[in-house]
Order: sequence, then C-alpha cells, then structure tokens
Amino acid sequence: MTVYLVGAGPGDADLLTIRAAQLLASADVVVHDRLVSSEVLELINRSAQRFDVGKVPGLSHSQTRINELLVSLGRVHGRVVRLKGGDPFVFGRGGEEAEVLASAGLEVEIVPGITSAFAGPLLAGIPVTHRGLSHGVTIVTGSMVQGSTVDFTSLANNDLTLVVLMGVQRRAVIANELLEGGLNSATPVAVVEWASTDQQRTVRSTLAQLGSLDVRSPAVLVIGAVAALELGRITKFASSFAASS
Amino acid sequence: MTVYLVGAGPGDADLLTIRAAQLLASADVVVHDRLVSSEVLELINRSAQRFDVGKVPGLSHSQTRINELLVSLGRVHGRVVRLKGGDPFVFGRGGEEAEVLASAGLEVEIVPGITSAFAGPLLAGIPVTHRGLSHGVTIVTGSMVQGSTVDFTSLANNDLTLVVLMGVQRRAVIANELLEGGLNSATPVAVVEWASTDQQRTVRSTLAQLGSLDVRSPAVLVIGAVAALELGRITKFASSFAASS
Repeated sequence: MTVYLVGAGPGDADLLTIRAAQLLASADVVVHDRLVSSEVLELINRSAQRFDVGKVPGLSHSQTRINELLVSLGRVHGRVVRLKGGDPFVFGRGGEEAEVLASAGLEVEIVPGITSAFAGPLLAGIPVTHRGLSHGVTIVTGSMVQGSTVDFTSLANNDLTLVVLMGVQRRAVIANELLEGGLNSATPVAVVEWASTDQQRTVRSTLAQLGSLDVRSPAVLVIGAVAALELGRITKFASSFAASS
Repeated sequence: MTVYLVGAGPGDADLLTIRAAQLLASADVVVHDRLVSSEVLELINRSAQRFDVGKVPGLSHSQTRINELLVSLGRVHGRVVRLKGGDPFVFGRGGEEAEVLASAGLEVEIVPGITSAFAGPLLAGIPVTHRGLSHGVTIVTGSMVQGSTVDFTSLANNDLTLVVLMGVQRRAVIANELLEGGLNSATPVAVVEWASTDQQRTVRSTLAQLGSLDVRSPAVLVIGAVAALELGRITKFASSFAASS
C-alpha cells in the first residue's frame, strides 16, 4: 500500500529515470497529468488502471479532488503511481499530495524527475550556469500562486540566470518588472516551447522584446546572458548544430 | 565521432536516465569525475576505456587538461561519454567543455541528469517549492568562482528557497551574509550529506546555528521555510517515515 509520486521528466521517454520506468511497468494504477507525454504513457503496463486527472470534467484544476482520488486509490491498491510532469517537488504540488497521503496514513515514496526548468534550457543548448556569465539560477512561476504573483522587480540580478515556468501569458508584465528592477533591456532571452518533444522550438530575443514575442505555452522562459548561447547538439531533436560565437 | 556530455544524477543508479544508461552500455570511452558513484560506474560496458579525471595526479582541478583529453579522445573514438555528477549544465562546467569540443569541430550531445540541488532536498523529504511556504528556488555555489564568491546578502528572500551546493566550508560566512541581508535567524536550514547514497544523512537546524553545525562535504544546504518539512518515504534509503507537523 504505497503511493509513488513520480517525476515523468520533460516528455522524452529516454529522459525518464530507470526507477520511474520500473514503476510504470509494475503499477496497479497510474494517475497522471495532462502534460505527461504519450511516449511516457506508453510505458505503463497494459493491465494498470489509468486516471487522467487533467481531462476528467470537473476534476481539472481541483487539487482537493485529486488528493481525494489518490487517498481512495491508495487504500485499495498495492502500487499506485502518481505521475507528474518534470519533478514532483519542483512546482507541480507534489508536496501537498505527499502531506495529504501521509495524513491519511498511507506510505509515500517520492521519485525525482528531470524538471523542464533545466531540461528546457539544456535542450536548447543553454547552460543555466556558465563561467563568466552566470553563477547561479533562480526558478519561479509566472502564473498566479494563491491569488498573487511573484514580484519580478526583486528578482532582477545580473549574476544569475532566471528561469520562468508558465510565464508566457504574463511575459509583458514580467519583462517590465525586471526592467524596473534594473535589468538591461538588451539582456538575452530565450523561450523554449515544448522542450524535449518533436514540437520543440526556441525563440531568442532580448528583454526589451519579450512582451511582444509570438510564443505559446507550454514554454520555459530563460532570461540572462546565457540565453544567447547555443551549445551542443540536441538529443533526438537536433535540427542544427552551432558553437557559441 | 560524437562526445556525449552526460548527467550521472545524484549517485543512485536507479536515478540515471534511460538515455544515460544506454550510453554507458555502448560507450567506447568514458571520462568521469571523482564524485560519480561506483554504482553508476558499474553500468559501463567492460570493453570501454575509462578515465577518472578526478584522480589522475596533476590532472585534478585542471579544466584545461580535461578539455584537451576530451578533444583528443573525441578525434579517435566513435562514442566518447563524458560523465558528470548531477546535470552537465547545472554547475559542473559542461558548458565550457561543450564550447571547446564544438570549437574543435566535434559533435557534442548533451544529456540532462538529475541535479543534486533538487535530489538532495527531495530525498530528505523537502519540496523546494510548496504552497504557502516557497514560490520559487535559487541555486548557487558556496565555493569560490573565478576568484570571487557569491554575495549572499542579495539572495536573502523570504519567498524563495535557497539551495547552496559546495557550501559546507563557508557555511558560517553564508549564514552571516543572509542574516545581514534580512533573513530571520529562525529560518529553517537542512544540510543533506551524500544525497541518494547509503551514507545519506540530514541535519536540520536554523540559520542562527548553521555556522556551527557539525556537517561534512559533499552536502547540499537548503535554507528557507520548506527546510523544516519531511514528506514521504525516501527511495531505498528510508530509515523513517514522517508526516509534516
């Protein structure tokens, strides 16, 4: 009677962990998000029951109902896998689910996954840290959190790379707040759409232009000097190979 | 003639990606760091040549010589795997190696890995983001970078979790700068030593006590409200199971 909170990584099934692949092959039940790729879902064993909690009408966006579903499944089945895009503890509310399951007396095991906050930049050839350009990285979400939004003015820091998840919709506000906070308008920006899928596309620009870029969700915004780099060939999805200038 | 820069993850071989395991099984040559675990090294195929660039006398700490070795191996062998702890583009200088290899005309493919900056907290039951406690995360290194160190006063932010890699040695200075920057002395702190190995140990305390904690490298420092949480059971290394209070 264990519920496994498992990171599905950015989408490419080869970027699952070995542990995650083993759990999908042996699960009794799998409860997954809308953003988990079909390539990953194909690794679930045929006899497992599946719940897509991103698609059930009335269930989407209701964390309370997802929590209730996990508790009731966890009480009946031996091996319930809760599959979440990226990493369960880097956004994605895995902490809340773990708390609820533990309070209900269920065992919970957490299996990390590769977060799109890092895989997105990497698969676009962007190292989030790089000698002389960035000595660290901050990751935040651009969407509303509990009715409020992150104050980006306080995140303007020339020494760090800023990665914004779910930031496409509010990109103009984010850019304005970072400019107000002191970032230069020429600061490089990269928007990586659908990282690690065959729809992956990277748009490069500057902070001044971020608000008016034609980009779509799901995407990762990368803001800082490293966003101008394009290093290495991209696993499986390479269309070009370029050394940095 | 491709050099693969591959993330080895935090140590547990089950936390390798499927892609990384495939490359280790088929490599002609593997060049690895000192911190890559023996459990991961066992997955390298028997006929591959191996170079431990953390142990060769005179070679340790010389990035230039590692770069030269990779270029010369890349010119001779079909499949060279450069295996790095964690993720190649989150600290670890993978960006520099990719630049040098590309300049030498070699193909480079980057394969992400699970960084200890996230696996460390996760395996101690700490979600780096959590509703009501943290809406983002900053990762920096506590060691010298190009002769200077990160200014932690500017990183004091009550809304974000701060993760510090290689911060054990300078933990007293880091704590003082964060206090100076405005963090409360009661801010929770967790130090996760040897994350994902059977030597994993977590020490929990507060920012006021960080400087005097008896902790050892390699370790990940987690600073912020989430550091007081302990959610879920730890994969393979569980000694206790606790719901958060």
